[in-house]
Amino acid sequence: MATIVFCSVNKTARTTARRCLSSYSKGLASSGESPLSCTHSSLTTLLPSTRWFSRGSSVRFMSHGTAGRAGAGRTRRGALLSGAAAVTAAAAVAGFLANANHFQRAEMATKVSPISEEKEPEGEILERCRGFMSPPVTDIGELQERKGEMRTRMEMLIMQTQADFCKALEVVDGGTFKVDRWQRNEGGGGISCVMQDGKVFEKAGVNVSVVFGYLTEEAAKQMRSRGKVLKGKDGKLPFCAMGVSSVIHPKNPHIPTVHFNYRYFEIEEEDGSKQWWFGGGTDLTPVYINKEDAFHFHNTLKEACDKHHSQYYPDFKKWCDRYFYIQHRGETRGIGGIFFDDLDSPSQEEAFSFVKSCARTVVHCYLPIVYKHLNDSFTEEEKDWQQVRRGRYVEFNLVYDRGVKFGLATPGSRIESILMSLPLSARWEYMHKPAKGTLEAEMLEALRNPKEWV
Amino acid sequence: MATIVFCSVNKTARTTARRCLSSYSKGLASSGESPLSCTHSSLTTLLPSTRWFSRGSSVRFMSHGTAGRAGAGRTRRGALLSGAAAVTAAAAVAGFLANANHFQRAEMATKVSPISEEKEPEGEILERCRGFMSPPVTDIGELQERKGEMRTRMEMLIMQTQADFCKALEVVDGGTFKVDRWQRNEGGGGISCVMQDGKVFEKAGVNVSVVFGYLTEEAAKQMRSRGKVLKGKDGKLPFCAMGVSSVIHPKNPHIPTVHFNYRYFEIEEEDGSKQWWFGGGTDLTPVYINKEDAFHFHNTLKEACDKHHSQYYPDFKKWCDRYFYIQHRGETRGIGGIFFDDLDSPSQEEAFSFVKSCARTVVHCYLPIVYKHLNDSFTEEEKDWQQVRRGRYVEFNLVYDRGVKFGLATPGSRIESILMSLPLSARWEYMHKPAKGTLEAEMLEALRNPKEWV
Repeated sequence: MATIVFCSVNKTARTTARRCLSSYSKGLASSGESPLSCTHSSLTTLLPSTRWFSRGSSVRFMSHGTAGRAGAGRTRRGALLSGAAAVTAAAAVAGFLANANHFQRAEMATKVSPISEEKEPEGEILERCRGFMSPPVTDIGELQERKGEMRTRMEMLIMQTQADFCKALEVVDGGTFKVDRWQRNEGGGGISCVMQDGKVFEKAGVNVSVVFGYLTEEAAKQMRSRGKVLKGKDGKLPFCAMGVSSVIHPKNPHIPTVHFNYRYFEIEEEDGSKQWWFGGGTDLTPVYINKEDAFHFHNTLKEACDKHHSQYYPDFKKWCDRYFYIQHRGETRGIGGIFFDDLDSPSQEEAFSFVKSCARTVVHCYLPIVYKHLNDSFTEEEKDWQQVRRGRYVEFNLVYDRGVKFGLATPGSRIESILMSLPLSARWEYMHKPAKGTLEAEMLEALRNPKEWV
Repeated sequence: MATIVFCSVNKTARTTARRCLSSYSKGLASSGESPLSCTHSSLTTLLPSTRWFSRGSSVRFMSHGTAGRAGAGRTRRGALLSGAAAVTAAAAVAGFLANANHFQRAEMATKVSPISEEKEPEGEILERCRGFMSPPVTDIGELQERKGEMRTRMEMLIMQTQADFCKALEVVDGGTFKVDRWQRNEGGGGISCVMQDGKVFEKAGVNVSVVFGYLTEEAAKQMRSRGKVLKGKDGKLPFCAMGVSSVIHPKNPHIPTVHFNYRYFEIEEEDGSKQWWFGGGTDLTPVYINKEDAFHFHNTLKEACDKHHSQYYPDFKKWCDRYFYIQHRGETRGIGGIFFDDLDSPSQEEAFSFVKSCARTVVHCYLPIVYKHLNDSFTEEEKDWQQVRRGRYVEFNLVYDRGVKFGLATPGSRIESILMSLPLSARWEYMHKPAKGTLEAEMLEALRNPKEWV
């Protein structure tokens, strides 16, 4: 499931950029705090929070006086790094270029930023926003006004997840994300971050969307078919939906593709009460089986799940294998991970806390695997097999993925954000069948008979 | 719409091959005619009819005493050519290799075999079968017994179309088709001919399927929703469906992709009477607009249509533009052609005659365009644009194509035959947008606003 809802950009990027920059300035002015302070403690500490400008993007954000200060007299790469954190990041990039062993650096990169489980610093919305890839979709002033509400906390979480993941990928790749903001006529919008044809990543997309308005009859029908009892006022059902969604396709066939998506849905009923639920998951699609990677990935997810409920990992692991299933091929898309939907228990606080743990673990699930295989050599045949598997990825996404299907069927969707999940290139070979006993056959076997990796 | 129904291969190719070969021998024995005679008069006269062996295929047919005779002491290429016809074909291949001008050869290749509108030689089933890529799906003896019936005449037509098209493509490419026979548990089967990574063609697929049995409740429901009134006996509706379907993706971005599909459906009702209808179409998907090609393609179709009804071309051209529409992109898949369905008037004879004209014109629609651009030089950028357009082709086929959707949703479908329509490779670039005034922008403009080419 890629992302909740994607909608059309009816204004030019430039107009949107101006509006958002003005929202941001308004937020800055109302907070009275210094735009330079930065206190959040995730992997983004590797990078300066002052980076609301998208190099090579059609949308450029220059935060007042700070981007200039940080950027003046520095190289593009230099501008991305500051203080002690730069040492680790620069080492990672330099090491990549020098073809060094990456196991140790992978450890460093992920140990620098332990998963912090403290409560999000609700009072510091503005400062946290400064670490994002772009100003949030919702006006910062509005976020500050309703900072205790779940939709604010979730929007902050998805923006933070996008920033953490993008920055971690930029460090390992050396490239930069193109940041596109888009707006939805009926309410809300999104921020799409895409890096294409980088050194390490063939195509990396990390999207956020925050949309609201009234549920269409079709959407309400779809939800009722999933067991939701929805009582609207005069037939109207105000809703708010948001999520972060990412698909990363690396170049090296020994680095797996990863996908994650965490989302929140809220519907206001006739009597003013709210129905809400969370959904999401993280799953891995390798081209070759590497048991150590599979263990690391699943175990990292399991640890995040176990802190909340011992049934979460086993249940959501099964759900993942069921969901990412290419029916017509009789095989799963990848080696799974976790997947869940309609999570509305035991309490909103606990469900959010679980989603937060999941979202905060995406970097730790994936980056060590990337670093580990960064310099693995590969043959043309291995690259071909990767392309064939990419074809299967396209098949799943276009034929089965609920999010993609829903998005494509919604008039005025932002197609480029939905289809950023597709690889840069893919291949369909007639009657492709790996020979018995090969690593390719081993991969297929794992896709046909999902395994327990932990 | 790719093909009607595709089903599972539950026997190994070898077993199936043996069975079919035995059917064929039975047919030969019962006919009492010489397996060497060959009288049909289409483009297949360019090539010998003695070729029921698939080089590089998992299924091999050697017709008794003839393949040996033809093949002994000849090269692989030599075995494909005989008599005067070989001159034209060999010239085409040699010319291709010598990088000569192909306009003249295109003329030759297509003028050698004018579209013959004579009645199909009903009495010569066995001889006609010998020109096919493989024995027909239905036992030849059975075809001879019911040679006047529409399903026999249609099966002969689709087999002939497959053979004509495959052979014409083999001549221009120099490669050979892999011929796979598959069988359907519930009745019938198919013959898939695929040439992959040839000199001229990236991927070329020409499939035939002939299936029968009882309509599933789902299929009957789908047909009723299309306005069909179906009265079954004890709820059972015996049906027979068949078609030929082809998608050709060339390597050179100046040679367009072509697709055609011609099909026949027959349902037996409670009182023993039959409902029947035809469907089909031929459409072109160029990477760059070439008005001369577009005119040739559409005009050839128009000429075939006009012989039957002056409204066929204008109506079916519009239908084609409507059908091959990528809704979420707001663009057609290609520059169209003709498309029709549920054709059950003015009479079965006349409808069949029209379908025959369409099927017989596929070589003439496409091959001259192939020859014309065979040696066009192209840049890396042009190849990239082709790959992006291939991505759109995949989107249409997986998201919208009724035949593909129906096939993928049918348990036990023969997936490889359905998905042979996908290109060998495709590309998705985020926010790809051709610059104004470029040839790529001109192409997009024609896809967004379908034109009249004739």
